[in-house]
Amino acid sequence: MNNRSQFNIEGNIRIMKGDELFIGPKQYQLFKQIIKDGSLNAASQNLKISYQHAWNLLNKMNHISPLPLIISYKGGNDGGGCRVTNFGLQVIQLIEEKESQMNKFLNNINQDFNLCSF
Amino acid sequence: MNNRSQFNIEGNIRIMKGDELFIGPKQYQLFKQIIKDGSLNAASQNLKISYQHAWNLLNKMNHISPLPLIISYKGGNDGGGCRVTNFGLQVIQLIEEKESQMNKFLNNINQDFNLCSF
Repeated sequence: MNNRSQFNIEGNIRIMKGDELFIGPKQYQLFKQIIKDGSLNAASQNLKISYQHAWNLLNKMNHISPLPLIISYKGGNDGGGCRVTNFGLQVIQLIEEKESQMNKFLNNINQDFNLCSF
Repeated sequence: MNNRSQFNIEGNIRIMKGDELFIGPKQYQLFKQIIKDGSLNAASQNLKISYQHAWNLLNKMNHISPLPLIISYKGGNDGGGCRVTNFGLQVIQLIEEKESQMNKFLNNINQDFNLCSF
């Protein structure tokens, strides 16, 4: 058993469509990596996930989305290319706003959180 | 691609000790089930996880905790028994308070959340 030391509350948010996950931390991370790398192949390599897994995540996001988020095409030397849509960029911005609100909330609830005060 | 329908933000919190997970949704669920069932064996069966996995989760929680949460013993016909400590009950209560604050926060951020307003 450890003695007193720093405990704190972390958290994350995810966007659902009904019971179905639309964008959670994993999808968000992939999205950002695609924006950075410009290709699904490079993004999957940098995230150390398989191309197929990244493709499936992306495909599912696009399917659930009311408008396409990222337009991708298979083939070519780099294994495919990607273009993020304006709607995709707006969704990312919205998520980051909500994340920022979440972080403020977490800071607040951590202020009076002390596991060792009992 | 689906047409407009209900999107909403969900979230969860977890208590960390530094970089180490202390209690997240899975641990919380096990904890509650143990309180309900009074034994780790029954709890693991009801959660459809292996006894060994439940034992490992519990053991790790107790190890990270500044005081024991659940005192368990192996053996006996039912595969072992459990006693939740007062500290364990207080931790659960604290988590539920924070969860309740989290739910209020999520309600607030969902008020002005509309993915289809772009």
